[in-house]
Amino acid sequence: MSVHFKKLALIGIGLIGSSIALAARRQGLVEVISIATRRQETLDEARDLGLGDIYTLDATEAVRGADLVILCAPVGAYRALAAAIGPHLEQGAILSDVGSVKAHVVKVVGPHVPAGVSFIPGHPIAGTEHSGPAAGFAELFAGRWCVLTPTSGVPQADTDRLVAFWQEMGSSVECMDAAHHDMVLAITSHIPHLIAYNIVGTVADLEATTQSEVIKFSASGFRDFTRIAASDPVMWRDVFLTNKDAVLEMLGRFNEDLSMLQRAVRNGDGAALEAMFTRTRAIRRSIINAGQETAAPDFGRPHEQPPTPEVPLVREHGGGDDA
Amino acid sequence: MSVHFKKLALIGIGLIGSSIALAARRQGLVEVISIATRRQETLDEARDLGLGDIYTLDATEAVRGADLVILCAPVGAYRALAAAIGPHLEQGAILSDVGSVKAHVVKVVGPHVPAGVSFIPGHPIAGTEHSGPAAGFAELFAGRWCVLTPTSGVPQADTDRLVAFWQEMGSSVECMDAAHHDMVLAITSHIPHLIAYNIVGTVADLEATTQSEVIKFSASGFRDFTRIAASDPVMWRDVFLTNKDAVLEMLGRFNEDLSMLQRAVRNGDGAALEAMFTRTRAIRRSIINAGQETAAPDFGRPHEQPPTPEVPLVREHGGGDDA
Repeated sequence: MSVHFKKLALIGIGLIGSSIALAARRQGLVEVISIATRRQETLDEARDLGLGDIYTLDATEAVRGADLVILCAPVGAYRALAAAIGPHLEQGAILSDVGSVKAHVVKVVGPHVPAGVSFIPGHPIAGTEHSGPAAGFAELFAGRWCVLTPTSGVPQADTDRLVAFWQEMGSSVECMDAAHHDMVLAITSHIPHLIAYNIVGTVADLEATTQSEVIKFSASGFRDFTRIAASDPVMWRDVFLTNKDAVLEMLGRFNEDLSMLQRAVRNGDGAALEAMFTRTRAIRRSIINAGQETAAPDFGRPHEQPPTPEVPLVREHGGGDDA
Repeated sequence: MSVHFKKLALIGIGLIGSSIALAARRQGLVEVISIATRRQETLDEARDLGLGDIYTLDATEAVRGADLVILCAPVGAYRALAAAIGPHLEQGAILSDVGSVKAHVVKVVGPHVPAGVSFIPGHPIAGTEHSGPAAGFAELFAGRWCVLTPTSGVPQADTDRLVAFWQEMGSSVECMDAAHHDMVLAITSHIPHLIAYNIVGTVADLEATTQSEVIKFSASGFRDFTRIAASDPVMWRDVFLTNKDAVLEMLGRFNEDLSMLQRAVRNGDGAALEAMFTRTRAIRRSIINAGQETAAPDFGRPHEQPPTPEVPLVREHGGGDDA
């Protein structure tokens, strides 16, 4: 479907906001882009980069006449932002966002959305280790998933327009319930990060000499956890503050399973251990079949044969396989 | 130092055994290589590959006259093997192994080692996802760590000879106490694998529709865990059966820390979360400084600037960085 917005308002212009500006412009999806930031310095940087047409420190000014408004600010700023811009949103406009939790966003933004405005929270699952307006690039969303969680009462036509908008920027779009999004992301992303932070923290508490050996032999598994645990602490703090229920639910299941494994180790129950270690292989197989096994963009790749060979693990071994 | 053995006996000829045969021969470290396997088929394969000089199904025959004997069989077979070969070991010989746990090996093999034989357990931290005699290659140990855990009463000269043997095959060698090895490997390797198996198992128990979404969005963190959890279930079963104490000790610490994180999430304690997420960065930094951040062999690389750029993470984001 053809998609076209008269005026796109981006509230916040970090990595995601600037990438939306560049991708939407390149694909000709919008006529005018207005950009609002909290700090003058960031606004000047966005202007120097030529990311938009209108630049303002006043978010209410930015959303005036906009038929698509996307909150690209930290989730912690949403409540105040929504209260401010709510009364100024255009009738018929679509309001969306890019935060990595969704039920919390519905809770803090929803009450400020006037009748006649379609509130469709979103979460592009894309990013790099860089941030700020200069970090954006038009291809950021290419081959990445974007999850939309339309709120009740939103006309299907509006959801379709926003889906098309993200598809035009290269994303594959999935619509689901906000609570369901939070549960899926809790297990695919939030719990893995929590666990990685946790084991690295356990090592940080070891006596100094052991710690230096842990670093020396980190290639045997630990290293992969430190990579995950190198992400931005403030962003992750906010994720766990705002997705508490789903994280605690999934953490509860994880802990139950870990207790079972721990008991099997304590009892020397080899059959139970082998059974648990075997059933995980099917999941790995599914990920390879789904073409999600590498960091390379996924869509359009042939999946029968992974294009990139699996990186050989530096595997612990128990000796040869025959005596 | 120059190192030379008259006769090397390899008991078991899988990936590690065959790689030792190839590397020792290439470096001219041994005169004669005798190979013993349990199965005729494996022995025939080793012979076809020309890995040694003497081939036998009788381990006691293989060790006769050998001044270096290395157990390369699964750790589960060590007790019976040691009982069989013990009486046939040459006076002055060095007995070693390649298993990934060490205190257990000392316990089951030690009692069968006669006076006048130097028992020096070892653990080359190297491997690939392949197994069997055909999987071996002479470069397997190049740039990899090998840990030796000399038992009490072993002459320093014998330890020095075995250190030199591994160094000649390209390894960097570290000597430590067996119990300490098991503790360090528990946290760098065994616990990471247990946790990875565990979270993949948690996902395996989710209802089917959620599971398919987890696979779809696995790039956001979960995927890295499935890669670790794809290793050989039987080998890992044996690791947890034979390194129980160290694993339970480290798992206890991990669980204490996780309880603290869980409580911080439940109480919405942002300051505690941010503090825990921040202190993990120093460890990551140490790993990069130690040149252990990539799977590429380490030694001799300049470490001020990592030779391979960090792989950009597909990072969850909380929106842009300014409003």
